[in-house]
Amino acid sequence: MTTAHRIVLASRPKGAPTADNFRHESFDLPAPGAGEVALRTVWLSLDPYMRGRMNDGPSYAAATGIGEVMTGEVVAEVTESHDDAFKPGDLVQARIGWASHGVSAGADLRKLPTDNPAPLQSYLGILGMPGLTAFVGVNDLLEVQSGQTVVISAATGAVGTMAGQLAKAKGARVIGVAGGPEKCDFAVKELGFDLCLDHRSPALRDEMAMAAPDGIDRYFENVGGSTLSAVIGNMAEFGRIAVCGMVAWYNGKNTDTAPPLPVVWRNVLTKRLRVEGFLIFDRYDRLDAFLSEVGPMVADGTIKYRETVMDGLDNAPDAFLSMLEGGNFGKQLVRVGDDP
Amino acid sequence: MTTAHRIVLASRPKGAPTADNFRHESFDLPAPGAGEVALRTVWLSLDPYMRGRMNDGPSYAAATGIGEVMTGEVVAEVTESHDDAFKPGDLVQARIGWASHGVSAGADLRKLPTDNPAPLQSYLGILGMPGLTAFVGVNDLLEVQSGQTVVISAATGAVGTMAGQLAKAKGARVIGVAGGPEKCDFAVKELGFDLCLDHRSPALRDEMAMAAPDGIDRYFENVGGSTLSAVIGNMAEFGRIAVCGMVAWYNGKNTDTAPPLPVVWRNVLTKRLRVEGFLIFDRYDRLDAFLSEVGPMVADGTIKYRETVMDGLDNAPDAFLSMLEGGNFGKQLVRVGDDP
Repeated sequence: MTTAHRIVLASRPKGAPTADNFRHESFDLPAPGAGEVALRTVWLSLDPYMRGRMNDGPSYAAATGIGEVMTGEVVAEVTESHDDAFKPGDLVQARIGWASHGVSAGADLRKLPTDNPAPLQSYLGILGMPGLTAFVGVNDLLEVQSGQTVVISAATGAVGTMAGQLAKAKGARVIGVAGGPEKCDFAVKELGFDLCLDHRSPALRDEMAMAAPDGIDRYFENVGGSTLSAVIGNMAEFGRIAVCGMVAWYNGKNTDTAPPLPVVWRNVLTKRLRVEGFLIFDRYDRLDAFLSEVGPMVADGTIKYRETVMDGLDNAPDAFLSMLEGGNFGKQLVRVGDDP
Repeated sequence: MTTAHRIVLASRPKGAPTADNFRHESFDLPAPGAGEVALRTVWLSLDPYMRGRMNDGPSYAAATGIGEVMTGEVVAEVTESHDDAFKPGDLVQARIGWASHGVSAGADLRKLPTDNPAPLQSYLGILGMPGLTAFVGVNDLLEVQSGQTVVISAATGAVGTMAGQLAKAKGARVIGVAGGPEKCDFAVKELGFDLCLDHRSPALRDEMAMAAPDGIDRYFENVGGSTLSAVIGNMAEFGRIAVCGMVAWYNGKNTDTAPPLPVVWRNVLTKRLRVEGFLIFDRYDRLDAFLSEVGPMVADGTIKYRETVMDGLDNAPDAFLSMLEGGNFGKQLVRVGDDP
């Protein structure tokens, strides 16, 4: 019998969450049943969406119950398997939450490629859901081509980091938009964007017009808000906008930054724009293409990215609270167990 | 030498135009030069966009000058040709304005099909620009399929009339939106729409929700305004919106009827909608397909439509002023000359 550890939701936060909302527990790992696999966690991903799961009430996904393990995606090693598709030592992505060990149906696991030297934890970030999101947006919705001018909002976030570099790799001119000089410097000097604008600038619209004198061909929309206001009037004819997120407007905030709908509609009509929304869970049929195309670029260092790593499952709540305050730079991870 | 007649812009309207803004003139038709063709007008199309050309100031197209012939599209007969592509007796579409005769470069003419028994004037309406607009929207942008729920705004207008009937012919369930009971009755009883809602109803959004309980798969957008507000929250997942016009918001009117952009963006994201604008002048490569597919349906009466016909070029100003007040039902035409 394995003694395992997990972090459960102790209470619902009122406003910003605190350490008191979490509780460490030990538990005996149950034996896997038929079709199930026992897992040992190596890496845990921390993501902003988890804040929403701590709330009760209606959302696009069920809330975490009081006393239940915190939701989360991990990279783990198979320790015992009753599913013929897996054997001990296999490395997988799993959704067993903030826990040192877990049992999962084999059908819910995704085996990691064995022929790729990219770091294990990259499958939670740059080669995980955020990376795939960027790949689908740039390739399938925006169909970015050489010579185009592409704007990437939330440019140094997990999605924007990859989206901008994929667009650069296709020969596009890439303008990032990020919050503050440190992130903008990173986008240009490390990620290789051609330019980065600070979305806090009151002159953002004019700066965007100067940055894209021939118009914006493609916009990867992660934020809405003042960035969209600056982009929409500067779109080029037959431009496209992939709507991937609108973080500026989550929880009903900042709606005064929205451009008026008649202005957006007029731009859509007279410039013949295409605006299309997507959610990554519809698009996992693209995972193999993504990993085979982008995996080697991550492994050989062509694609740059940042991670913020916390050691130890017990420190996951602190890392999570810090991330919600912007204390991370790039993907927030927790190292839960030793590398296999 | 042919003595011809034309209506010119005598003065710019202040507010609503009046008969005083127009003047009848006689003129000697010049002989056509090399590559030119002389024409005798049979039918003149009157369209709302002509009101905009009477104004000075910036627009998407140049204003008509004082003393210049009023802009307009006609169906005409070739009387003399110095272009090898045309011979006397050919019937063409031309842009010679409100005139009994004119001279045009052959390159600016479009020859009418000779193998189609549809009425000549239909090439200015149901088989002309408005019809082609509907065809491109329904087929190329919306890709309407059997079983889908399709909403058509401005349902009894020249574009909406065709768009709804094309969607019905594809097996879709068609909900029209129009102004007032007479137009709604026409949409259902004559055009065969399944349902028609009055955009003046204060309960339009609830009525739309009841009319489309499984959501709206396709929306042919001609108006913006309260119709869009009623549609956007009732769109189905993976729905599409073809933005063809936004007449409710022209001249900056009715902008208080716009749904807030964050609401539109949230619908685009969570429902994975595609919103795309188009202008028909990009799409004339589809004219042959349109005429060969839809021409026979107009000729055999499958496609219904209405026309309001005024006789005589001298009465064109009165017909135009009446049309601007909603006095027409369906396409407004002027019979300028005898059928060939």
